[in-house]
Amino acid sequence: MRSTPLAFALHLVEFSAALVLASSLSAPQTAAQTQLPLNLMPQPANIKTTSGALRIDANFTIAFTGHTEPRLDRARERFLTQLHRQTAIPFAKPNASGTSQATLVVHADHASKEVQELGEDESYTLEVTPSGAKLNAANPLGVLRGLETLLQLVEITPNGFAAPAVTIQDQPRFAWRGLMIDVSRHFIPLDVLKRNLDGMEAVKMNVFHWHLSENQGFRVESKKFPKLQELGSDGFYYTQDEIRDFVSYARDRGIRVVPEFDMPGHSTAWFVGYPELASGSGPYSIERKWGIFDPAMDPTNENTYKFLDELIAEMTELFPDNYFHIGGDEVNGKEWDANRKIQEFKESHNLKSNDELQAYFSQRVQKIVTKHGKAVVGWDEVFIPGVPKDIVIQSWRGQQSLATAAQQGYHGIRSNGYYIDLGWSAARHYAVDPTSGPAASLTDDQKKLILGGESCMWSEYVDPENIDSRIWPRNAAIAERLWSPQSVTDPASMYARLGVISEQLEWLGLTHRTYYRKMLQRIAGPATPEEFAALRTLADIVEPVKDYTREQTAPVEPTSQNPLNRVVDAVPLESDTGRHFSELVDKFLAGSCRDTALASELRQKLARWSQNDAAFSSLAQKSSLANEVTATSRDLSAVGTAGLRVLDAIAAGKPLATDQQSQLSSVLAQAAKPKAQLILIPVAALNKLLAAASQPNVCVPRP
Amino acid sequence: MRSTPLAFALHLVEFSAALVLASSLSAPQTAAQTQLPLNLMPQPANIKTTSGALRIDANFTIAFTGHTEPRLDRARERFLTQLHRQTAIPFAKPNASGTSQATLVVHADHASKEVQELGEDESYTLEVTPSGAKLNAANPLGVLRGLETLLQLVEITPNGFAAPAVTIQDQPRFAWRGLMIDVSRHFIPLDVLKRNLDGMEAVKMNVFHWHLSENQGFRVESKKFPKLQELGSDGFYYTQDEIRDFVSYARDRGIRVVPEFDMPGHSTAWFVGYPELASGSGPYSIERKWGIFDPAMDPTNENTYKFLDELIAEMTELFPDNYFHIGGDEVNGKEWDANRKIQEFKESHNLKSNDELQAYFSQRVQKIVTKHGKAVVGWDEVFIPGVPKDIVIQSWRGQQSLATAAQQGYHGIRSNGYYIDLGWSAARHYAVDPTSGPAASLTDDQKKLILGGESCMWSEYVDPENIDSRIWPRNAAIAERLWSPQSVTDPASMYARLGVISEQLEWLGLTHRTYYRKMLQRIAGPATPEEFAALRTLADIVEPVKDYTREQTAPVEPTSQNPLNRVVDAVPLESDTGRHFSELVDKFLAGSCRDTALASELRQKLARWSQNDAAFSSLAQKSSLANEVTATSRDLSAVGTAGLRVLDAIAAGKPLATDQQSQLSSVLAQAAKPKAQLILIPVAALNKLLAAASQPNVCVPRP
Repeated sequence: MRSTPLAFALHLVEFSAALVLASSLSAPQTAAQTQLPLNLMPQPANIKTTSGALRIDANFTIAFTGHTEPRLDRARERFLTQLHRQTAIPFAKPNASGTSQATLVVHADHASKEVQELGEDESYTLEVTPSGAKLNAANPLGVLRGLETLLQLVEITPNGFAAPAVTIQDQPRFAWRGLMIDVSRHFIPLDVLKRNLDGMEAVKMNVFHWHLSENQGFRVESKKFPKLQELGSDGFYYTQDEIRDFVSYARDRGIRVVPEFDMPGHSTAWFVGYPELASGSGPYSIERKWGIFDPAMDPTNENTYKFLDELIAEMTELFPDNYFHIGGDEVNGKEWDANRKIQEFKESHNLKSNDELQAYFSQRVQKIVTKHGKAVVGWDEVFIPGVPKDIVIQSWRGQQSLATAAQQGYHGIRSNGYYIDLGWSAARHYAVDPTSGPAASLTDDQKKLILGGESCMWSEYVDPENIDSRIWPRNAAIAERLWSPQSVTDPASMYARLGVISEQLEWLGLTHRTYYRKMLQRIAGPATPEEFAALRTLADIVEPVKDYTREQTAPVEPTSQNPLNRVVDAVPLESDTGRHFSELVDKFLAGSCRDTALASELRQKLARWSQNDAAFSSLAQKSSLANEVTATSRDLSAVGTAGLRVLDAIAAGKPLATDQQSQLSSVLAQAAKPKAQLILIPVAALNKLLAAASQPNVCVPRP
Repeated sequence: MRSTPLAFALHLVEFSAALVLASSLSAPQTAAQTQLPLNLMPQPANIKTTSGALRIDANFTIAFTGHTEPRLDRARERFLTQLHRQTAIPFAKPNASGTSQATLVVHADHASKEVQELGEDESYTLEVTPSGAKLNAANPLGVLRGLETLLQLVEITPNGFAAPAVTIQDQPRFAWRGLMIDVSRHFIPLDVLKRNLDGMEAVKMNVFHWHLSENQGFRVESKKFPKLQELGSDGFYYTQDEIRDFVSYARDRGIRVVPEFDMPGHSTAWFVGYPELASGSGPYSIERKWGIFDPAMDPTNENTYKFLDELIAEMTELFPDNYFHIGGDEVNGKEWDANRKIQEFKESHNLKSNDELQAYFSQRVQKIVTKHGKAVVGWDEVFIPGVPKDIVIQSWRGQQSLATAAQQGYHGIRSNGYYIDLGWSAARHYAVDPTSGPAASLTDDQKKLILGGESCMWSEYVDPENIDSRIWPRNAAIAERLWSPQSVTDPASMYARLGVISEQLEWLGLTHRTYYRKMLQRIAGPATPEEFAALRTLADIVEPVKDYTREQTAPVEPTSQNPLNRVVDAVPLESDTGRHFSELVDKFLAGSCRDTALASELRQKLARWSQNDAAFSSLAQKSSLANEVTATSRDLSAVGTAGLRVLDAIAAGKPLATDQQSQLSSVLAQAAKPKAQLILIPVAALNKLLAAASQPNVCVPRP
């Protein structure tokens, strides 16, 4: 299953570092070329920079040699559209032009599979010279990947737009590089999903895992069982025509679409229309809250399997991919325990636990899926002794299951560590490798069973307005983890390139940057410029609470009816301003607090924070949405003032006295407590600064 | 033709001022209600605020009484979508719910015309109380207008989102309130046009004038003469299906679509496929440059009229509006003069000039248009002695033609003063009234012949990326001019409300605010944050050259092939930062320079400008697009430094010496010269400051 990199015939210099500088072997280069790193993400497997650059102007053309197909024509049109967006250069509509004159000549040896398969060759070579570019690949998938690399190479230079001369040979490390989006807890319209497919293509991801059913909604039109969507979706579902269009949109981008129908749990929405599937007595209604709920399918009723057989027959026809996800997670067993008939069934079939009952269900469903020509994917919970070997385990609960599964000969996909709804930093996700942890000690053959990974966007707290910002740009770091050589791990390089890629992703129509000011404006209403600036300053330096604490700390019970218009919904999950401040403090401490320029930069930021609450509190009186974060605003100002006092002590050249330490420490401790579900990011760095300034000789500049 | 306001039975207080405060007659109000102005644009004819506010939450519903039709259902859905965007509150999909419980009850007396007519009743009354809202109108057009008013009333408050209690009776001053977009010089796709229709609806404009043909492109599919679009559009045209869809999209929003086919000049693109229409010998190719060109239709050839008869037959069927625009502007007559056959025709028909020849052409075309059931609209040039009375004159060359036309009994539309491509400020457009200038002395009956006005977006320097920013928000000020009572003229109130409306327009998907950072990022490339901030500071304080000087000062000959990616394409046509600075200087001077807080605010801005060139020049070395404005950046820093010296002198309490004056004056004079087609906005204000500081007793603070 794992994609096997082609033997690479050319002797290229391979750089494991992310910032590729000019090789000393190549000819003299202009300043721009030698100074600028290549802002590529994911980092290609092999790069060799050479001399000069390919100028991009209105005469840019693309020709195909070798295998051609309409999908490649559309890829060319999309490439030119995207190049136009990046540069604003008006390119002519492509028409059949002579190959020899084209700026970019693309060659594909042969077609790819009609239905894209796991492990198909995605490798390519791209050669850019001052006079033109050549892109070669075994099949159209490699062409798609290479075109994205070329788009990322194009930048403004002293001489207009250009791509630096470079030779790249590239292929993915893992064959399964996915993004899962839960469209059930909050419905996500197709235009939003499509722009996210565009983003996936840009960072070379190749699996869209579509979490289509949940307690909160069944999102697919079934013609056989229309009450699924009619009663289970509030009217928010995709028609079969829309799904076919979406699958073909994804195929155009080299992306497989794996549908998930989660069962036997997470299925309340099915039961609204078909209560006879459930283990309880009903009636059921669409779930509005978040969490794990009791309703579960009745695994003892032959009609359940009859229903699923017909539904899966319909759905496997709609979704051409070879894989079919049956969920299987988080069944609490309460409905089973409460049902006498089910208890009797367990006894008569010698099923000793609900786990065994679920294994029985999984095997029945797997047989149905197999009958309809597909392989099964399931969450951790389907990995139960005796489950057939061709099932793929998607690990989410921990690192162990993937390793254990591989040891037993099962394929696996890692999602543990890639839950992008939990608010982790890009660096934290980036450090998670599918073959790290217990998987690190697998044999090479066992490691090959690990197909790759998938970032998961669960949608309790996202809607079409902010979902892009919860996926991007962090998802690009995960995409790099799954594509690039294992040795590409430097977070500083990752962040430097991520900033550039984040801007480039905007040209696709993704709204992960533009949404922010608009959401803040909704919160601010018709505020004064000073009030708006104060809100922005505060919002820039906080992050939502992490992991599952958002549920636990909710001011009102969270449901799908809550507007996602609060500050916690508006701020990015990772604060760039906060990260930069922490870096600044680390740098200042590393230099034993002697760098006065750094001290002054820190002081400037702290002073602004210390004064920020004045303007903010005036806004808070006018807007309930701003008012919610008044305590955080006061904390920010207190923290700013505390930070200034620490800097004062450092500047004065003597450690803080014990009572000062404890007073400042208690200010920081108070500010460290999340309020309105927000974390004040600078607190951690300021604690470091305080600690350093409290110890003689650690951070007191010596004369 | 002019819409006649209904006699208004209720005795409401009419406010002519834009900021409506609580009437002292009404009950006591909360702080929020009394302090906040109503951010409505256009300002309604009559407003009475009362006590309390209508809370907006997820239970908000809309019901219809009286006349109903599918268009109103769609209007409700659109209203709820828009309200959701403004608030993020999830509203249920509307279904047939009981009238009595609905939050908003909408009543239309009867249907409007199947094809919307000029002068149809658009009046409405809107009553908002804490317990609900009522919107009444004679027909669906008034409902559409009232719904937009209600959307503008909803704001964040200390108690969540709410609309203040208010009673509004409203109707337009003019019946023709249009926006023209030229889609020929640069092709503008339908999605961009549609979001601009949404913007028009939001500010109650009701005519979309579609400038569809030009030397640079024929943008409509003709099935009778397919070479028009096949050879005359570079493949960029609208199909007839798309046009029908667009017209119906506009009708849903109460907007008429008036097509323009410009003839006999401005028609080179027609001749590429049909050279026999022209007065020259051809062959012709699509024009790539801007300006006035020689090609013109042959008015002496009967085949020209036969062709036009068939084409107009086809086009009048496609465009249902009662008006049909035939252009008629800017024929230079050179092709006519060079054609012996045409010269002979003029002699034999006793046509003494090319004007008379064009009058002959116009009358022939008008007969054709009339035969197909439409009334003719034409630019100034078609207003020639003897032209039939039912022609509508669209004035653009000056103020006189509208007045003269009205005196002679012709209807007119004002566009002179509303050319939004020329870079005027919102205030300057706002001061232009259709009945000002020579029209002010018309009789009341003559004034009624002035149907309204149209803002015109000529597209030499716009493309889909920046066109929204060239239309909005300034177009909202023109919309107010055409809708609101003539007495609504305060520019300060206009700007205060325009800022809020500009933000609200973003919820429609208009990109007039979001485009800016993206275009600057394209210019900056992967710049450092400091470099990007320097670019932003510079860009914030410049404006493109005004009127027609962009052509005259172009660094390379401007054509449709030039990328619109320069700083001049990126910066807004009106600099808010520049306006605020000028206001600040005026305020400082009005206080005889004694206000030290103002002095310090000015000093802070000037200091930032004076230092800005350092970071900018480092960017300029990396990006050709930034490099173009290096001289402007140096000017900005010089201007900042000069301003600081003036403030120094003021602070020191003595007038500037003559040599200092002349030195500073020459710095400002140098900076006043546009460079890279940009005007440095603060120069004018600094000249005032310099002048004041140069005279004893004018701006030297007395002790």
